[in-house]
Amino acid sequence: MLPLDYPAQNCSIARALEILGDRWTMLVLRNALVGQSRFDDFLRLGVARNVLANRLARLTDEGLVERRPYQQHPLRHEYLITDKGRAVWPVLTALVEWGDRYYAPDGAPRLLIHRDCGGQIRQHLSCTACEAMVGGTDIVTEPGPGVRRGAHVA
Amino acid sequence: MLPLDYPAQNCSIARALEILGDRWTMLVLRNALVGQSRFDDFLRLGVARNVLANRLARLTDEGLVERRPYQQHPLRHEYLITDKGRAVWPVLTALVEWGDRYYAPDGAPRLLIHRDCGGQIRQHLSCTACEAMVGGTDIVTEPGPGVRRGAHVA
Repeated sequence: MLPLDYPAQNCSIARALEILGDRWTMLVLRNALVGQSRFDDFLRLGVARNVLANRLARLTDEGLVERRPYQQHPLRHEYLITDKGRAVWPVLTALVEWGDRYYAPDGAPRLLIHRDCGGQIRQHLSCTACEAMVGGTDIVTEPGPGVRRGAHVA
Repeated sequence: MLPLDYPAQNCSIARALEILGDRWTMLVLRNALVGQSRFDDFLRLGVARNVLANRLARLTDEGLVERRPYQQHPLRHEYLITDKGRAVWPVLTALVEWGDRYYAPDGAPRLLIHRDCGGQIRQHLSCTACEAMVGGTDIVTEPGPGVRRGAHVA
């Protein structure tokens, strides 16, 4: 995670990327979302120990995982996904769909499945007013209630 | 963008993050998606010139933007979003929604609006089989057609 922030960027994408804009963070979250919780599990991603410790500390500080002891002698902690962490699922599903579309010539390596019925999960953008499904060319942006004067990016 | 790749990670998230797992890349894409196309426009993000050149070269190589001359004397290029770049919208909308939910105490700084009717755009996960809307706790993963033997992460 870079130390930079974007004081002039009054933008939820920029803010979200301050937390999530790092590959190891997203891969750790991915594994936490499917049930991994221990340092040694995450290490198997191939991430360096110090980098992993840094990412888990940041995720804990920001409340995406909760650090909890699971063993006392010696003391060991696990990292359990929180509601705020689970709310990153739509970002991951969007990454899966884009990766499947452009970088999976042999087909999807993993499917996202509805626990209750076994069907495949897909993501949609829709309009809350007219209820139409929308695509990228249908989107424009405009200032919202939280916009600050002087924010110059779209 | 880190030089690492994840040969053992047969996962579309990991593959997508090889391209998108970098904050500047996502912020450049965000601005390209709302119509910016010139080097000097993107520079106003606050990104260093060499970093921006690197990110735009990578985005061009991977086909998310198309580099095209817009002036001959001196030669100047612009970077126009492609269909593959536009297909990143769902990742950005997911980041917006998460950022708005957890990091926008004064309300959303920017709204994503349906061009045709002016309504707000929202993202949903739904099941292609039973058509239910699903949330993070409803998702499990299973191997897909493109899975490779030896891939050990979920």
